Amino acid sequence: MTLLAETLSRITVPSTEVALRAQKLLDGKTKPRRSLGVLEDLAVKVASIRVMDVPPIPKKAIVVMAGDHGVTAEGVSAYPQEVTAQMVLNFAHGGAAINVLARHAGAEVRVVDMGVKAPVPDLPGVRSARVGPGTRNLAEGPAMSREEAVRALEEGIAVAREAIGAGVDLIGIGEMGIGNTTSASALTAVLAGASPAETTGRGTGIDDAAYRRKIDVVERAISSNRPNAKDAIEVLAKLGGFEIAGLAGVVLGAAANAVPVVIDGFISSAAALVAARIEPKAEGYLIPSHASVEVGHRIVLAALGLRPLMSLDMRLGEGTGAALAMMLVDAAIKVMHEMATFDSAGVTDTGR
Amino acid sequence: MTLLAETLSRITVPSTEVALRAQKLLDGKTKPRRSLGVLEDLAVKVASIRVMDVPPIPKKAIVVMAGDHGVTAEGVSAYPQEVTAQMVLNFAHGGAAINVLARHAGAEVRVVDMGVKAPVPDLPGVRSARVGPGTRNLAEGPAMSREEAVRALEEGIAVAREAIGAGVDLIGIGEMGIGNTTSASALTAVLAGASPAETTGRGTGIDDAAYRRKIDVVERAISSNRPNAKDAIEVLAKLGGFEIAGLAGVVLGAAANAVPVVIDGFISSAAALVAARIEPKAEGYLIPSHASVEVGHRIVLAALGLRPLMSLDMRLGEGTGAALAMMLVDAAIKVMHEMATFDSAGVTDTGR
Repeated sequence: MTLLAETLSRITVPSTEVALRAQKLLDGKTKPRRSLGVLEDLAVKVASIRVMDVPPIPKKAIVVMAGDHGVTAEGVSAYPQEVTAQMVLNFAHGGAAINVLARHAGAEVRVVDMGVKAPVPDLPGVRSARVGPGTRNLAEGPAMSREEAVRALEEGIAVAREAIGAGVDLIGIGEMGIGNTTSASALTAVLAGASPAETTGRGTGIDDAAYRRKIDVVERAISSNRPNAKDAIEVLAKLGGFEIAGLAGVVLGAAANAVPVVIDGFISSAAALVAARIEPKAEGYLIPSHASVEVGHRIVLAALGLRPLMSLDMRLGEGTGAALAMMLVDAAIKVMHEMATFDSAGVTDTGR
Repeated sequence: MTLLAETLSRITVPSTEVALRAQKLLDGKTKPRRSLGVLEDLAVKVASIRVMDVPPIPKKAIVVMAGDHGVTAEGVSAYPQEVTAQMVLNFAHGGAAINVLARHAGAEVRVVDMGVKAPVPDLPGVRSARVGPGTRNLAEGPAMSREEAVRALEEGIAVAREAIGAGVDLIGIGEMGIGNTTSASALTAVLAGASPAETTGRGTGIDDAAYRRKIDVVERAISSNRPNAKDAIEVLAKLGGFEIAGLAGVVLGAAANAVPVVIDGFISSAAALVAARIEPKAEGYLIPSHASVEVGHRIVLAALGLRPLMSLDMRLGEGTGAALAMMLVDAAIKVMHEMATFDSAGVTDTGR
């Protein structure tokens, strides 16, 4: 059995039995029932995924995957392609937004080169899992072959396994790749059944002319590739990016090992949607973070049945929103560990 | 000059000059301009309030004020009145939700007895600033006299001063008081010009009959007291609670000392609205946190021109949402301190 097939076969639905017990435990804490709302949902979800009534405070890692995109030839981004590699160096040196926010949240950052155009030099903290020197231009044909897509998925599975092997039990996903909102828009249009105009936004900040061009590129990508929407791996290969495929693999690898995944903005959420379409049982392992400015994000979140925790008008990616959400997950789990019960604190419980 | 008058005279509008410089600094960081959205707004706001281009990571405190309400005689709450005092003990022993979340956010908790019915025993970490043994029933007449309202405001100012004197430069506000959503609903109806049906919710969880009774109580409170909406102190005296008045005082005391205040849910936001109606320049010192389940909360936030950062279906109070928002404020300030610039990291800046 291949690594991918073996991983998919191991994904099960999170435990509803544990979820019920975790909620019961929260109901005994000194607060009106359910008055911590989504914070209680988060605690219950992590408990049910970890199959532990009171999971420990998680060891956290954000996997940031980088890749380049042939579609930048169409002029769809406000930034030149070399910025992808420059930002990988910035991640390695700890100066990017994700480094700051991950440190704040107590998460390590694991950077992976999934296929930046120019190979990134050997750097501590950067893993090389290059599938190629950037994808091909999806407006003109498949961004990658099916074999490349599977290879990228399996690299992601391996990254998740390695992190989990090192004790990580909460994974955030983030990305860097000039041009990758175009890929995410195309993937979302096909997988969520929406039009390119609905799923396409302005990325890092393009003007009106570039925006119209970008919608046209997404439309051409779909009409020239004609992906079969029922075959998520085919859709991924034709319209995806190496880093998007890698992150979908991380989701599958985490789910197979009973570890929750905090998604970030539009692109990483699109990767999670790919994973959930490859194996629907993976959906239960996803934790939302924020609502991005990118218009397509809410379509992806709705397709995943997730409601964002925060509305911060962010549109940076890198896993920045995931890092912030991890602080809420930790808060939720600490409530389970540290709050007094009605009994222990001598507070009257009306059962409401 | 009284403490209140002197405090009001010292409140000035936050510095727009510093705000511009802080935004310029953020624009030089390795990310598309404004791509951290509200996180950038938070950093800029704290800078402009503190009158420092790059403010230090703040020393944080949550002021939790407790008080009892004569209106509980009307059967408006699902919890008996003695729970207010029981929860003050729980706060003092560190077992309540606010203790857990404040510890998580790195904030100290300062508990203040503003007028719990039965005096709270001397406890470390609990300040006694009792204005009376609970307010009178606002459905039948003024909850307190104007003198009591001013005294509660000044106690709040003193609490803010003391915290700031101890180095605190970010204050969150939270409350505990069985019956206090009724008071907040009445205050909001008058100060925001809304109907009792629009501002009244189910508090900690009452049934339909109690809910109808609660709306009726708010209507009677307004019709029997006929407060002058242009005189916020009169409105506060007639419809408020000791803890609500105290928190309004904390807001005024913080604003007078150039310290931002993170508001929490419906009741603490209503207290902030009272402060902003007493001195409109205080409005610029407020930082929102979450959108509570309580229907009146969004009316208060709109009246204050604030948009919540998080949507977590919380309805606990105590400052729990404020504690979570403090982690976002810290994150925003760390971005200013720790992120690399385009120059320092050698990343191409397109100015977009």
